[in-house]
Amino acid sequence: MAQVPAARQRPGTTRTLLKGVDGAGTVRRTVLPGGLRVVTETLPTVRSATFGIWVGVGSRDETPVLNGATHYLEHLLFKGTARRGALEISAALDAVGGEMNAFTAKENTCYYARVLDTDLPLAIDVVCDMLTGSLIRPEDVEAERGVILEEMAMAEDDPGDVVHDLFARTIFGSGPLGRPILGTQETVTALTRDQIAGFYHRRYRPENLVVAAAGNLDHRAVVKLVEQAFAPVLAKSTGHPAEVRQGVKAVRTAGQVAVLNRPTEQAHLVLGTPGVPRHDERRWAMGVLNAALGGGMSSRLFQEVREKRGLAYSVYSYSSSYADTGLFGIYAGCQPKRVEEVLKICREELARVVEEGITEEELHRAIGQLSGSTVLGMEDTGSLMNRIGKAEISYGHHLSVDEMLEKMAAVTLDDVHAVARDVLGAHRPSLALIGPITDRRAAKLADLLV
Amino acid sequence: MAQVPAARQRPGTTRTLLKGVDGAGTVRRTVLPGGLRVVTETLPTVRSATFGIWVGVGSRDETPVLNGATHYLEHLLFKGTARRGALEISAALDAVGGEMNAFTAKENTCYYARVLDTDLPLAIDVVCDMLTGSLIRPEDVEAERGVILEEMAMAEDDPGDVVHDLFARTIFGSGPLGRPILGTQETVTALTRDQIAGFYHRRYRPENLVVAAAGNLDHRAVVKLVEQAFAPVLAKSTGHPAEVRQGVKAVRTAGQVAVLNRPTEQAHLVLGTPGVPRHDERRWAMGVLNAALGGGMSSRLFQEVREKRGLAYSVYSYSSSYADTGLFGIYAGCQPKRVEEVLKICREELARVVEEGITEEELHRAIGQLSGSTVLGMEDTGSLMNRIGKAEISYGHHLSVDEMLEKMAAVTLDDVHAVARDVLGAHRPSLALIGPITDRRAAKLADLLV
Repeated sequence: MAQVPAARQRPGTTRTLLKGVDGAGTVRRTVLPGGLRVVTETLPTVRSATFGIWVGVGSRDETPVLNGATHYLEHLLFKGTARRGALEISAALDAVGGEMNAFTAKENTCYYARVLDTDLPLAIDVVCDMLTGSLIRPEDVEAERGVILEEMAMAEDDPGDVVHDLFARTIFGSGPLGRPILGTQETVTALTRDQIAGFYHRRYRPENLVVAAAGNLDHRAVVKLVEQAFAPVLAKSTGHPAEVRQGVKAVRTAGQVAVLNRPTEQAHLVLGTPGVPRHDERRWAMGVLNAALGGGMSSRLFQEVREKRGLAYSVYSYSSSYADTGLFGIYAGCQPKRVEEVLKICREELARVVEEGITEEELHRAIGQLSGSTVLGMEDTGSLMNRIGKAEISYGHHLSVDEMLEKMAAVTLDDVHAVARDVLGAHRPSLALIGPITDRRAAKLADLLV
Repeated sequence: MAQVPAARQRPGTTRTLLKGVDGAGTVRRTVLPGGLRVVTETLPTVRSATFGIWVGVGSRDETPVLNGATHYLEHLLFKGTARRGALEISAALDAVGGEMNAFTAKENTCYYARVLDTDLPLAIDVVCDMLTGSLIRPEDVEAERGVILEEMAMAEDDPGDVVHDLFARTIFGSGPLGRPILGTQETVTALTRDQIAGFYHRRYRPENLVVAAAGNLDHRAVVKLVEQAFAPVLAKSTGHPAEVRQGVKAVRTAGQVAVLNRPTEQAHLVLGTPGVPRHDERRWAMGVLNAALGGGMSSRLFQEVREKRGLAYSVYSYSSSYADTGLFGIYAGCQPKRVEEVLKICREELARVVEEGITEEELHRAIGQLSGSTVLGMEDTGSLMNRIGKAEISYGHHLSVDEMLEKMAAVTLDDVHAVARDVLGAHRPSLALIGPITDRRAAKLADLLV
């Protein structure tokens, strides 16, 4: 079934994008006049539904001065509208046992609520009210500044968290993708109510939003409730759905070493390189490579670092994609005196896949692993909402589970070797490290990366 | 439907404990000759299944010298049997995208795997093999010692984690429930292969195990596979299912203050008292009280500490139950200079529920919250497996979702006030605190608890 991108779908119309078969749901999209996209996946066998609103704005859209504004705004949307104060917002969902939350990423922000299907109208009402009617009152901005500074302090107390921010900075430098999502103490302390409210009014426009819902629901009923809730906003909008983000060739660096000397029990390290961008078809091969190298307990890194040598409790690799670039990293937490040893093993395993790729047995296992977890992820309405929301805002195109399984199954040994060589092998790896490491010792680590 | 406890169910027979209605599954129990209990919940609308084995042994069953042995053993069961090495165990589940893991608690240990329904026989084979045929080879004991020391170091680096262990110690002292599940550096370093293997052979007997499975499955097929896998063990066993744990009136203390002076960004505190034991019918009222006081975003603590004053990012209360006692705690992470202020608010809110109970509006909201999340929890086979496994090993009795909802709905304002007064009000609260707090300042904190 050929899918029309939202930008070319006539406002006021509905399209069926995927037909539900084999336990998968039917995916439909309505584009409302004003440019608001509403996608749903109906799954009549469950009793719950998850409703979310995705905003196509993240920390990479901030200027250095506004760093942290997207996340700050996310907090403020929970503080109240003309219809509800902060207590009423949370009480409404608490009273029905719903889970409501939000997250800010580098390219998107998402607000969502998971509820019993019978409570879906309530969830739609509350989340849409938050998105369209936030007051952003000066006193709330001040109270929430304290909360965010506490959130940053809590993250600072977790070196396994800090090291990932540090790693993004080694790869993307001081550019937008290298900056922390939460911002810095300086920017969060300095941000004003007007700056944040300006950000809200400029960015949270209907054409920049995707409404996504999954579970036991009726598409038309959801559309109707969303249309009512957005009526005042849509009346003023003449927009068309935004094109999916293309990015602007993010700055990337290689062979950087960043070490934070801290009195922690463990040393926390991330070793890696730039990765594949989101629209790159090699992402399927990269998924397989990542699974084989560090994606599970049978992966090379887990076996070499943990099972055989007992050097770490937590060791894994991961692959992230953005519009124009990506990130590939290997994380390990180990005794500070073992850093060089662990780093050497990780470096060797990275070199080995660049050189030789993976084995046939690993290929089959990795494909099985990705396929199985894709199908297992279909049972949770939260995961489904995430999948269709992300697909709509990032690709403007939806793949069925069967199509995803086909893409995975089609990955060959050569594909995996090619992506290892051309992506992981294209750059000298960078290193981020936090632990009780002296400057003298840190200075020598770069030699281990060659 | 009157349920017979497993200990009085004739070996070799099967009972239907709960009939599936309204989307809930049918719960059945078979007691195998040799004393092994197998409980399942069938839910034909899903495509997955979770298989678990619960062992009625946890860290409270250890002597001080053996502290950490239960958790150490849990790690070792992943290292290999006569049929599979560590790589084969993890590769088997990875290859089908399954999630396999285990956890050790104070009274139980659980091993489980979540897979597609078609892979259930594989999951049963692997998990049963691990439980019945672990080799516990000396070289694996040594390699895994390093991994566990790393796990402890990682936990040490997370003050929000350490403070909970410290709090258990303030309430339960140096008794079994006050000791850390992971053990200490000293005990883990000293534990020998023979001590751990002895623990395994003494404790992992069929009568001490509960097999629990939930999802799209056939009870008889599961029983048959389990019976085959356990055949050599069951042939040697003449046991009857163990009685549920009754406990021995754990030591409890009150009004203790434990402060760890550490250079963290945030101060992490837990304030609380002994709670209700597992078999105490007041647990339903305690659940409601906990929800209203610190269970969600609309709770008193969240509103007072975070929403109104912006003093913390994370603040909540929790209630844990053991066979003979319980724990009630309030956690908050805040700026070190705000400790006294946050502590004062938490202390006041605790005193206020002891004095006055909660309001009618809070009662209804809390009951709604608990009911909604109970029903939402029915969709995930992992949660269902947990529920029936825990119910069987801890109560020997299963409540249907409707019965649980009735118990919650029946809680009155008086019940809540009574449990607040009689449980939270019975002891002067204790405090555990980690942060950059001088001895002099710590010495004055006790005055704030009166």
